[in-house]
Amino acid sequence: MNYIEIIGLAAAFCTTISFLPQAVKTIRSKNTEGISLSMYVVFTVGTFLWLLYGVMAHSLPVTAANAVTFLFAGIILGYKLRYR
Amino acid sequence: MNYIEIIGLAAAFCTTISFLPQAVKTIRSKNTEGISLSMYVVFTVGTFLWLLYGVMAHSLPVTAANAVTFLFAGIILGYKLRYR
Repeated sequence: MNYIEIIGLAAAFCTTISFLPQAVKTIRSKNTEGISLSMYVVFTVGTFLWLLYGVMAHSLPVTAANAVTFLFAGIILGYKLRYR
Repeated sequence: MNYIEIIGLAAAFCTTISFLPQAVKTIRSKNTEGISLSMYVVFTVGTFLWLLYGVMAHSLPVTAANAVTFLFAGIILGYKLRYR
């Protein structure tokens, strides 16, 4: 693994795991006022498409990262729809 | 371009553009209470690392998509730091 791949993996780790604190905060506070519904609708659709792309292109990193992000984004979207 | 690439491009478009309505909402309302600071710190660092990866791996789609997302995420992070 060269250093470019290490940067790519670090990038994927950050953008994937970043949605965890948002999901935890939203679940705990149920405060979704400042959160954009449009963002989470489009973003959740986007991560689902990435997941589909990852499976079809046989890319384990894309599939795994987006399965996790899709879960977090879906939870945040669910709370936004429930507590707006 | 095959249909797998089209799905990948649609995915990249969705996950990139989704941060625009959040940035607009945050700029207009200045309400950042429901937004997780940890998410935007880690996510902004992540998109910067993707940008770096895109440049070093000579990937125009990764570079372009993450330049846009980095801008939006940076704006949201700036507002979160300013109006928390």
